[in-house]
Amino acid sequence: MVQIQIAKAQRSASRVDDLVSTAPGTPAGNYLRRFWNPIYHSIDLKAGRPVPLRIMSESYTLYRGDSGEVVLAQARCPHRGAQLSAGWVEGDALRCFYHGWKFEKDGRCSEQPADESRFCDKVPIQTWPVREYLGMVFAYLGDGETPELPRYPEFERFAGLLEIDSYLRRCNYFQNIDNALDMSHVAFTHSNNRAAFSRIGLGSGLKAEESDWGVAYTFTRDDGQQRVHQFGMPNIVQIAALPNDPEIGWQESLFWWVPIDDVSHIQFSIHRVPASGETAARVYARRQTRRSQIDIAHQDACDEILSGRARLDDFDADRVDLVRLQDDVAQLGQGVIADRSQEALGRADVGVTAIRRLWRREMSLLADGRPLKAWKRSQATKVRAWKIEGNLAQVAGEDTAEASDAVPEIVDVRPYVEIEQQMRSLHASPQDPR
Amino acid sequence: MVQIQIAKAQRSASRVDDLVSTAPGTPAGNYLRRFWNPIYHSIDLKAGRPVPLRIMSESYTLYRGDSGEVVLAQARCPHRGAQLSAGWVEGDALRCFYHGWKFEKDGRCSEQPADESRFCDKVPIQTWPVREYLGMVFAYLGDGETPELPRYPEFERFAGLLEIDSYLRRCNYFQNIDNALDMSHVAFTHSNNRAAFSRIGLGSGLKAEESDWGVAYTFTRDDGQQRVHQFGMPNIVQIAALPNDPEIGWQESLFWWVPIDDVSHIQFSIHRVPASGETAARVYARRQTRRSQIDIAHQDACDEILSGRARLDDFDADRVDLVRLQDDVAQLGQGVIADRSQEALGRADVGVTAIRRLWRREMSLLADGRPLKAWKRSQATKVRAWKIEGNLAQVAGEDTAEASDAVPEIVDVRPYVEIEQQMRSLHASPQDPR
Amino acid sequence: MVQIQIAKAQRSASRVDDLVSTAPGTPAGNYLRRFWNPIYHSIDLKAGRPVPLRIMSESYTLYRGDSGEVVLAQARCPHRGAQLSAGWVEGDALRCFYHGWKFEKDGRCSEQPADESRFCDKVPIQTWPVREYLGMVFAYLGDGETPELPRYPEFERFAGLLEIDSYLRRCNYFQNIDNALDMSHVAFTHSNNRAAFSRIGLGSGLKAEESDWGVAYTFTRDDGQQRVHQFGMPNIVQIAALPNDPEIGWQESLFWWVPIDDVSHIQFSIHRVPASGETAARVYARRQTRRSQIDIAHQDACDEILSGRARLDDFDADRVDLVRLQDDVAQLGQGVIADRSQEALGRADVGVTAIRRLWRREMSLLADGRPLKAWKRSQATKVRAWKIEGNLAQVAGEDTAEASDAVPEIVDVRPYVEIEQQMRSLHASPQDPR
Repeated sequence: MVQIQIAKAQRSASRVDDLVSTAPGTPAGNYLRRFWNPIYHSIDLKAGRPVPLRIMSESYTLYRGDSGEVVLAQARCPHRGAQLSAGWVEGDALRCFYHGWKFEKDGRCSEQPADESRFCDKVPIQTWPVREYLGMVFAYLGDGETPELPRYPEFERFAGLLEIDSYLRRCNYFQNIDNALDMSHVAFTHSNNRAAFSRIGLGSGLKAEESDWGVAYTFTRDDGQQRVHQFGMPNIVQIAALPNDPEIGWQESLFWWVPIDDVSHIQFSIHRVPASGETAARVYARRQTRRSQIDIAHQDACDEILSGRARLDDFDADRVDLVRLQDDVAQLGQGVIADRSQEALGRADVGVTAIRRLWRREMSLLADGRPLKAWKRSQATKVRAWKIEGNLAQVAGEDTAEASDAVPEIVDVRPYVEIEQQMRSLHASPQDPR
Repeated sequence: MVQIQIAKAQRSASRVDDLVSTAPGTPAGNYLRRFWNPIYHSIDLKAGRPVPLRIMSESYTLYRGDSGEVVLAQARCPHRGAQLSAGWVEGDALRCFYHGWKFEKDGRCSEQPADESRFCDKVPIQTWPVREYLGMVFAYLGDGETPELPRYPEFERFAGLLEIDSYLRRCNYFQNIDNALDMSHVAFTHSNNRAAFSRIGLGSGLKAEESDWGVAYTFTRDDGQQRVHQFGMPNIVQIAALPNDPEIGWQESLFWWVPIDDVSHIQFSIHRVPASGETAARVYARRQTRRSQIDIAHQDACDEILSGRARLDDFDADRVDLVRLQDDVAQLGQGVIADRSQEALGRADVGVTAIRRLWRREMSLLADGRPLKAWKRSQATKVRAWKIEGNLAQVAGEDTAEASDAVPEIVDVRPYVEIEQQMRSLHASPQDPR
Repeated sequence: MVQIQIAKAQRSASRVDDLVSTAPGTPAGNYLRRFWNPIYHSIDLKAGRPVPLRIMSESYTLYRGDSGEVVLAQARCPHRGAQLSAGWVEGDALRCFYHGWKFEKDGRCSEQPADESRFCDKVPIQTWPVREYLGMVFAYLGDGETPELPRYPEFERFAGLLEIDSYLRRCNYFQNIDNALDMSHVAFTHSNNRAAFSRIGLGSGLKAEESDWGVAYTFTRDDGQQRVHQFGMPNIVQIAALPNDPEIGWQESLFWWVPIDDVSHIQFSIHRVPASGETAARVYARRQTRRSQIDIAHQDACDEILSGRARLDDFDADRVDLVRLQDDVAQLGQGVIADRSQEALGRADVGVTAIRRLWRREMSLLADGRPLKAWKRSQATKVRAWKIEGNLAQVAGEDTAEASDAVPEIVDVRPYVEIEQQMRSLHASPQDPR
């Protein structure tokens, strides 16, 4: 019955809440497809092993050619509808498993073996622009001219580790966006590693202002110090993250929330960890140890909690992904698709309100065929943290690593069960012929 | 596909059969909500561990405060819809896991930490009257004035054991009500522990008459002896049960059938076992041994049988819950939701016919806004058993334990896998935002 | 969500593609029910153990009486709808598990124990004609006069082994029919045991012509040799199969594709293996060894592949059912229900085109109440193979075994996990009350 209820929720919520569905042709789907989005991790894509991929409720084939180049193509063969991911990579081309039709990396059909290629020119497959960047595969899934891929220079060049730390969440993506600029949940949802409410995130100290990039979200403490998060439209956040290693001060992070379908999404996360030499080696070793210690996936632990079979306290408070588990409980606790029509928002929800307003304004412009705002990072969209627990207050980019021309080492710190969860969701088979 | 079929069955059957659905706003749902119903077992509700609860297709939060008091509240926080069962009990109040809003046991919002409580008075949560009684949590889920909680004095005070012996069944609740006053199935469905048909339950000896409490169901044997079951409206039965312990004669039982949703229900069962002193200790020990011997849940065994992978005979004929397994096979064999439009009822179905007629009469009165019959137990609604296998014929209340002022010991005899089944169903997560 | 998507696909595809659904009352269902179809394996039906059976989206009870006779009856008892497969076989009759109503093998109700048989004559159950033949149970599920059961004399009498080698596939049956006369997929889908494309199945050499029985499908090689498959309407194929035993040359096979529901079907397969004496003993031993070596079902392996968690090459290339796994990947890769509206058919698809055309012509005749073509095998519908890898070219029936009056030994060569898969699907419980 759960399946039915989800579907019902989805249809019903979609009707009233245009932020929910990103399926092809929906307002939110159209808008989100106007941006480059990360869709996969480079490290997960092996040459010669195409995968089926589900992004924003649409199915694709993703593969890495023998040259190393990444190709994103449609899910099915135009001949008889076979799933192309089962086929063989030949050079940078892909050959269908059923009757051997061959498609070049630009989608052109170059062979129909049993049909002597009589109508190859009539049966190309669709492909989409992709780029590998910062350890991820980015794609532009929209219509019209392909925009420039936005760059994050300070994550490209620095002396340190660039950590891949993404996770899957089994609820609508916008619940995570809502949660992005919501400082007042931290004291409660995450109170297992932070003391209870101490005026951090108090509504009267919060500001959410439209910026060049999206929303600048500022909390001003009683002592005047400020913490600033930057939300980048449509689905990105940049923060100075909490330290979780004894040798690392505040680290900067970039997150993207990308829908797999309307009831699950992936947060692509990278951390910029300024550590080099032997410090980096020690940090790396600790991270590898911690990722191995996760036995039950946080998604499964959350199911146990929300179905009343366990409490959060029943799980190890030292697990490296505790924060994710806590956010799982909060966000999935809202339902797989939250019902925003029943909310009672207050002063502390200014971030939530601001982000939704921007999305709806832009979706409305798009529907009317009017120009969208061209969001971009600028000097004004710097993040800022404050002094806590012995660390120095930080303004992003002020650490010594910044000036470096060094190329960071990209390291995967996702727990192994996390990777398995991601694969199971991202690789959803295109059973639906539509 | 099974999921789809269930949903289809449900919609289709609901349209024609108003006994099936007890979801909010349905005729049967409205009627059943006019009575106190058991919704949980006291022993399962630990202080400080709120649980999500699903009853009659509606979601709730149930918790026990630090004082021991039980509170039944709505499922979601009015702020952003988080699932309240994930929150923390503070005294007898409940604090939300997401942003720390606090709700007193009467539903009043007493804190909105990050919002400085500016609109607490506008965001109470709904709560419902609850009582703990006979080892169970009873709730009144209806509108209007709360009626008196019906009492069963002879189960409150006697020298002996009050056994908690409830079970989950994965079909519509009314199939179990139909089965309640159907003596003629016993010789067949339960023939693994009873000889085949020997005129017990023969249609011509059966009578089902409206009583003060519901239906008095009487079978008169060829030798003139009578067996009497009492059905209490709307979903209760009182019987003198079969003996299953060498030292216990006929024991009296009370059963309530409570829908979890339209495709599953729980039978809350208590047995009044008149045994004290060393006899009670021996009975208790045997019961504890027997509950531990169940490895595969009867619900799973039933699935094996109805899907043709096993026969009833393949399972241990001595399992303590054999009768449940047999009834599972009969009732789930009718489909998760039985199709009453295809029946061919005869003289032996007088009990079934009588109960449905009463329900439909009362539902019709309720729909018309006319007064319902005020059902109550009386002197005329005594149960009666006959002499069998060396036991004495019994009229309820005539055993020596009756006169006692002793308080029975409440003991849990549910098999451990049974408890797990109940938790999984009762704690269904409120995924549906409606 | 997969469940939902399947259902959506089904409804949507059914609307436009009348080949998909064989549920009662559908065009394809009506047509397929005009023929005898295998519905079960004789060896799987034990006396005294009735089973629930799902064929063409309809539920039945199948049992073998004490005399050995097979009876196919409706799924539910007409009294209160209990599932008859849970009941007891008494002689060749069946007694219901709930209230003991007894039904003779012709469907007549002969006992209503608790109702003193007052209306037995009004509550017969429906039964259908069945025959055991070639190791299978055949049934005629249609209306009107029962036609003769088609016979295959050369499979009845020969010196050798008649192998039962059926399998379950979790997609619509017509994708397998489409695949039946599609020689050009062999070089690719099955290229793990055959070299890549070598002009076998080249469109210009293929012919698909209507025959007395259905479609004669011929491929003429560059050297003039011919291979001929015979498709028998509506869902049968006869081929000379690939050798998979060192002592057996080309063997003949008969396949029937029978829908369980719209999203799964079973291929009933028998192989006529001309081997006697010690050769037969050695062949038999090798077959028994090979069937035992399968650990993961090919259906599950296919799921792993189509969901991107494994590649075909990750599985043992020597597994006896490799060809099934390969066809699984191709056919389920088209979706659980293929979307034929998106195809791009070419010259090499003449077999596919021919079969669909015949089905649609006959379905149209049936809908109009006009006479259907009376398909039958004839001298003209012989299969033919060509010389390959040291085997002699064969025309069916020309081997020495043909003349024999010997009765073949029927042997089961299905892998054990395959049998389990079949039982799980064929025994789908009749949860849907319709």
